[in-house]
Amino acid sequence: MRSLKLTLAYDGTNYAGWQRQTNGLSVQQLVEEALAPMSPGGVPPTVVGAGRTDAGVHALGQVASVNLNVDGELTASAVQRAMNFRLPADIRVIGAVDAPLGFHAQFHAKGKSYRYRIALMPILSPFERWFVWHCPMRPDVEAMRRAATALMGTHDFISFQARGAFIRDTVRTIHRVEIREPAGELAIEVDGDGFLRQMVRVMVGSLVDVGRGQKPAESVAAMLAARDRRAAGPTAPAHGLTLVSVRY
Amino acid sequence: MRSLKLTLAYDGTNYAGWQRQTNGLSVQQLVEEALAPMSPGGVPPTVVGAGRTDAGVHALGQVASVNLNVDGELTASAVQRAMNFRLPADIRVIGAVDAPLGFHAQFHAKGKSYRYRIALMPILSPFERWFVWHCPMRPDVEAMRRAATALMGTHDFISFQARGAFIRDTVRTIHRVEIREPAGELAIEVDGDGFLRQMVRVMVGSLVDVGRGQKPAESVAAMLAARDRRAAGPTAPAHGLTLVSVRY
Repeated sequence: MRSLKLTLAYDGTNYAGWQRQTNGLSVQQLVEEALAPMSPGGVPPTVVGAGRTDAGVHALGQVASVNLNVDGELTASAVQRAMNFRLPADIRVIGAVDAPLGFHAQFHAKGKSYRYRIALMPILSPFERWFVWHCPMRPDVEAMRRAATALMGTHDFISFQARGAFIRDTVRTIHRVEIREPAGELAIEVDGDGFLRQMVRVMVGSLVDVGRGQKPAESVAAMLAARDRRAAGPTAPAHGLTLVSVRY
Repeated sequence: MRSLKLTLAYDGTNYAGWQRQTNGLSVQQLVEEALAPMSPGGVPPTVVGAGRTDAGVHALGQVASVNLNVDGELTASAVQRAMNFRLPADIRVIGAVDAPLGFHAQFHAKGKSYRYRIALMPILSPFERWFVWHCPMRPDVEAMRRAATALMGTHDFISFQARGAFIRDTVRTIHRVEIREPAGELAIEVDGDGFLRQMVRVMVGSLVDVGRGQKPAESVAAMLAARDRRAAGPTAPAHGLTLVSVRY
């Protein structure tokens, strides 16, 4: 038995998200199936992802762990090549290394970085349509930055969690919310020790409300204090979001 | 009657090319159908494109002309908005202006610029898979640049034309073949007064042969002199190519 740490990039457009679904094709399923030939009896092994990206969400550096019963002579990079040969071109294993036995991509993760892209131009580029949220507007970026500051630190983020998620501990620490302005865009980068379900998307939806002048920058503190999903802004669409990296 | 000059950007991945086909969906067909409500009887008007991009080829600045029997009070930008409302998100009208009556996007074009992207990295990014040709290699870029120089100027490019194309005058003038090196890539930019069918793709295939050391840089002059398609290199795949702009 050995443990592998896999780093994955994927275009989430055509998938029902990371996690295996009964009613849709998931990234996890294809990654597991790509490992089947290296598994006893050809049975796909269980692969654990650091984060469950939603349908349409992309990854530049998702991390996954797997225990394999493969011959030690098969190097991690040979496993990587074999997987990339079997996987469709919208999912790539960009790194594979041996990890200590028992390595668990989800439980051992110390933090994650996400990026959310917003296109501001009146006409959305056909090449960006699956990768940005199209919000043609002149946003008040300084107000958004003030609002973002209020999201940083350790807070109960229950107001920023998808309805229907049942997690006991909803306190998380956000280390960085940075709003960059590449040409015609906003890129909102968020680092934190952990994230609730749809948390980045609700943060972005709330910041865009501020950028549009629909809510004052100061309202974010009240959103947190309310401990009620209805207090925060709308959930930004999935396809603008990318899981950039996972820290261990 | 009035003439309009339309500038179009499209992701060619899902189309059988610019030109109307009986057995596939073309960009031209959708552009014509988007104009139908502004045409007498709702009949889609004929739209002329500056260049017939092949299936899978993209455009940042294709130009098209159309004669419309619309009320003069409908501004060109109102036509543009109405078209973008009807077109799918992978085709956008990025500009629309009134043109002199009789403007013909193909016959009046004075030149075109294309860009061909080649990904050199061992693992192809899932986000670039429809927009680059994946050639994992360490190319001899200086040899490619020497070969590119031989392609510049006025030549009979019949060796660089798709088999089965029957054009009487195969002499064209190429003003620029520049090979840029963005991170992990080559971008081959070609400006010319006109192009034969698949000419840029055969030029790129020939330059890649040189970059791989399969042919010397000096062989390009012999390819031109042979006046035979078999003398030039392979046709590079369509999806790496983008029509960048058309000059009038």
